[in-house]
Amino acid sequence: MNYKIDNLQYCNWSREVFEINREAELDAVHVTIVYHEDYDELLKRVDEWNIRFKDNSDLIFHGKNFKDIEKAKDQKKTAIFFGFQNCSPIEDDIGLVEKVHHLGCKFMQLTYNNQSLLATGCYEKIDSGVTHFGKEVIKEMNRVGIVVDMSHSAEKSTFDAIDISEKPIAITHANPSFWHEAIRNKSNDLIKTLAKSGGMIGLSLYPHHLREGTNCSLESFCEMTAKTAELIGVKNIGIGSDLCLKQPDTVVEWMRNGTWTKTKNYGEGSKKKPGFPKQPDWFEDARGFKNLESGLKKIGFNQSEVEGILGNNWYNFYKNI
Amino acid sequence: MNYKIDNLQYCNWSREVFEINREAELDAVHVTIVYHEDYDELLKRVDEWNIRFKDNSDLIFHGKNFKDIEKAKDQKKTAIFFGFQNCSPIEDDIGLVEKVHHLGCKFMQLTYNNQSLLATGCYEKIDSGVTHFGKEVIKEMNRVGIVVDMSHSAEKSTFDAIDISEKPIAITHANPSFWHEAIRNKSNDLIKTLAKSGGMIGLSLYPHHLREGTNCSLESFCEMTAKTAELIGVKNIGIGSDLCLKQPDTVVEWMRNGTWTKTKNYGEGSKKKPGFPKQPDWFEDARGFKNLESGLKKIGFNQSEVEGILGNNWYNFYKNI
Repeated sequence: MNYKIDNLQYCNWSREVFEINREAELDAVHVTIVYHEDYDELLKRVDEWNIRFKDNSDLIFHGKNFKDIEKAKDQKKTAIFFGFQNCSPIEDDIGLVEKVHHLGCKFMQLTYNNQSLLATGCYEKIDSGVTHFGKEVIKEMNRVGIVVDMSHSAEKSTFDAIDISEKPIAITHANPSFWHEAIRNKSNDLIKTLAKSGGMIGLSLYPHHLREGTNCSLESFCEMTAKTAELIGVKNIGIGSDLCLKQPDTVVEWMRNGTWTKTKNYGEGSKKKPGFPKQPDWFEDARGFKNLESGLKKIGFNQSEVEGILGNNWYNFYKNI
Repeated sequence: MNYKIDNLQYCNWSREVFEINREAELDAVHVTIVYHEDYDELLKRVDEWNIRFKDNSDLIFHGKNFKDIEKAKDQKKTAIFFGFQNCSPIEDDIGLVEKVHHLGCKFMQLTYNNQSLLATGCYEKIDSGVTHFGKEVIKEMNRVGIVVDMSHSAEKSTFDAIDISEKPIAITHANPSFWHEAIRNKSNDLIKTLAKSGGMIGLSLYPHHLREGTNCSLESFCEMTAKTAELIGVKNIGIGSDLCLKQPDTVVEWMRNGTWTKTKNYGEGSKKKPGFPKQPDWFEDARGFKNLESGLKKIGFNQSEVEGILGNNWYNFYKNI
């Protein structure tokens, strides 16, 4: 097998983006369909996706489980798996977990950057871990089959989630902080514990998560990948590019501010650089997978390891959950 | 002046309850109108109250500010002030703070027993304090004129709220834990800091907050009141009875469980005693204010101090905010 999977994109979806993903030979993409939307707003996002599936049925279809990754490869299409970057759609109601699963939700972050009803986000000062409601929701996510995603969560909350969840969890898009000390990146202890429990980390290509940002070199990224593999093993590493192709800057503003503040929060950006950062030239979009492939080989990974990182490891994770 | 105020009731509202409150000569009652309801559900609760105001206009009216307490006394009616025991109605939207104020919200708890988006509830294991969103909401509550109520919040969160809020806050219904070690009761340090900042504590008559519960004696309650006055001064003490007259046990179940768990949480109760506890015989309803009056005098409070505790202190608090 040889599947290519990008396990996190949040693009301004259009036929052009789907074509680029096909050109990159992506068999599956985990797409963020909501951040701060409540359940009713989620229903609208799902409707929008149903129109996209209809209008672009030669390029994409709604992926439900690992077999759809195989089907996508056969049909030269991209299977689209739904995920949430915040738990807003389940509101304060455990009953909505099953409902969002029925709508196709495959991954749900317990928090975005702030405290949620379930756990603490990585931007809060104090991390109290997974809450009472959070424990109940993780149990329910395990039961119905939604992966716990802790990409934007704080450290103790993430350790808690690994501990509480009976199924492996994921950090769909982040990098190790040994390479680049971003608030969103993860400690060695954390990614080791994640991997031991069968969890996956999707390495991110979002400039704020990269050493030297937009100017990060392919070599540096691949070196980081090699060191991560030494630390946690190669089988628990994938890609979650965090590509936000064609998004206007108003979208990153909304991602960071939602409706929780009357002032402006810049998240990983700053007053001087408030918008989406420019991608490195070797990964402007998913066609950069080709560059990753040659870069990872050059750094010393063998063919099977490279294929694992670029998709097969995610495929196995989907298969096991 | 001599106002009588019960600063927390959550009864199964009926003409009979309003008559009892008038018999008790209550000039004002702060009533809980929602726990876990979202904004749309709040609108329904407000509609229900508007019908009650219409049907019982000889007994009650909607109180908006301290002048309505004076008006109530003049007209021999009870002014009803709205409050929330959780922040659910503002959902994740800072813009809703002003809207709920327009609907008449005068008090809002930042949390019920669990973690909220704003702060930590007293039943969580770890208290991370007021969150980023919580800080923004407190600022906005200060601006529009909603009192921060920390009755069901954890300790650090409450210290944070006192510190962050530019206006005095309230603990509308709880007792000091030096007298009875309930999770919901408050430490000496906390009530001292509260009083120093101009905040109020409403002493609770809810059996789970009382030493010996239903069997608590009037003398014991009044001794506790005297010791509290020694600790924090008499002017920051009022009554918040937490009366839940005529409520069926399904209501306390819903208060504790909302929609956050598929199992059953007993809160302050237990599997053996899951329902509402029986009130002590000297405070079966608000007519018990008469017993409090004589009990407080007997323990040594002078007339003006007794009048302060039974209403004037809350009146002054309403006047200053």
